[in-house]
Amino acid sequence: MRLKCIVSYDGTNYSGFQRQQNQITIQGEIEKVLEKIHKKSVPIHASGRTDAKVHAYGQVFHFDSNLQIPNSNWKRALNSLLPDDIYIKDVEVVSDDFHSRFSAIGKEYHYKIMLNEYNPLKKNYYCYVKELNIDKMIEASKHLLGSHDFRSFSGNTEPVNYIRTIYNIEFEPSDDILIIKFTGKSFLRYMIRIIVGTLIEVGTGKKQVEDIQNILEKHDRRCAGFTAEPQGLYLYKLDY
Amino acid sequence: MRLKCIVSYDGTNYSGFQRQQNQITIQGEIEKVLEKIHKKSVPIHASGRTDAKVHAYGQVFHFDSNLQIPNSNWKRALNSLLPDDIYIKDVEVVSDDFHSRFSAIGKEYHYKIMLNEYNPLKKNYYCYVKELNIDKMIEASKHLLGSHDFRSFSGNTEPVNYIRTIYNIEFEPSDDILIIKFTGKSFLRYMIRIIVGTLIEVGTGKKQVEDIQNILEKHDRRCAGFTAEPQGLYLYKLDY
Repeated sequence: MRLKCIVSYDGTNYSGFQRQQNQITIQGEIEKVLEKIHKKSVPIHASGRTDAKVHAYGQVFHFDSNLQIPNSNWKRALNSLLPDDIYIKDVEVVSDDFHSRFSAIGKEYHYKIMLNEYNPLKKNYYCYVKELNIDKMIEASKHLLGSHDFRSFSGNTEPVNYIRTIYNIEFEPSDDILIIKFTGKSFLRYMIRIIVGTLIEVGTGKKQVEDIQNILEKHDRRCAGFTAEPQGLYLYKLDY
Repeated sequence: MRLKCIVSYDGTNYSGFQRQQNQITIQGEIEKVLEKIHKKSVPIHASGRTDAKVHAYGQVFHFDSNLQIPNSNWKRALNSLLPDDIYIKDVEVVSDDFHSRFSAIGKEYHYKIMLNEYNPLKKNYYCYVKELNIDKMIEASKHLLGSHDFRSFSGNTEPVNYIRTIYNIEFEPSDDILIIKFTGKSFLRYMIRIIVGTLIEVGTGKKQVEDIQNILEKHDRRCAGFTAEPQGLYLYKLDY
């Protein structure tokens, strides 16, 4: 029986999603719990990784189980054994050909920035920039919509296919906060954080709106802006 | 020269405000920075303590300094040396008879509760209760307004004057969140957390609205509800 789970987590105290030896990771914690329940090792398969300190509202993973447990009990059992910064929101039986990563048709990420005065209570959940010209950032973001070779905005160390499609970039400013919402089929390594870093440089005047087109065409990571801090990034949801 | 500072902090990783040997405290961190700047020990005096894991938006403290530094430079100097979960919002020169604690005429605390579904990203900033009858809590809270002997709602271990005056208790419910705002001249030890715990017990049906009057009159801590968790509590502001 294949089970699909939606999980939210606070990434602050984790070395990212993916299991790594001698590191505390989200996957490691979840698999530890599944091993306890199954009395054998049960690997999980997620929609993708998230980096250290990155959060998730709606990460998705699946695993196969031979146990006969109703969905609501699955949820309760997992949450009662998981640490309190990881929470299973939903458990659902899916068909055997469902795959968290390969069946996904869309992915949404949010990036949160606090503006004006620094708030120490938000330090693990926002990146801080004093002032931004949001109109210029919106204009710049339009050059990134659609399908492009995003090599300049990629942190991949091994060569991959750099063509990605961004469906939408939406800006939601309010008081002292800016949320930037990205939807696409999939993203390259660090792609959203590099895009956000580059847009922040446009918003602070360090880069111009016109530079974006040029950066895209250069296919060179060094042309884009800095990699924005991980704690502002949220894997918001997956579409299937 | 006497300086009044407004400070906000994330209490998650601190053993409370007050300096204690071998413990990491807010006061300890601030005094370490002042000692570095003055090259001698400079004690600070706050409006009151906050417990371990309790947060502050607008805690106030003062200290005396013989250094000639403009206010805006004070703010920058302190923040550049403080850890990033403590932030000085304002520095102001005040008269020598100002005292953060004794000059205060009012104090506001907020208590934040997350409702419905648990959110692991809020675990250090809210207490969690699945469902509450907020109308009953509002009704119950009215019995606590004004001046009373709050011994039943006090965690003080040494006898003190238990008479306190609550000016207002305001409920601000929204979506999955309930914020309860308390204003008063001053509060007893754990008083707000015990009041919140008791109101939660009314909201979940464990206690009745009518019980509140009785609890007040008993002058016995064992009659009131549990002490609500510290991480939902915020020292919001001081009035002078």
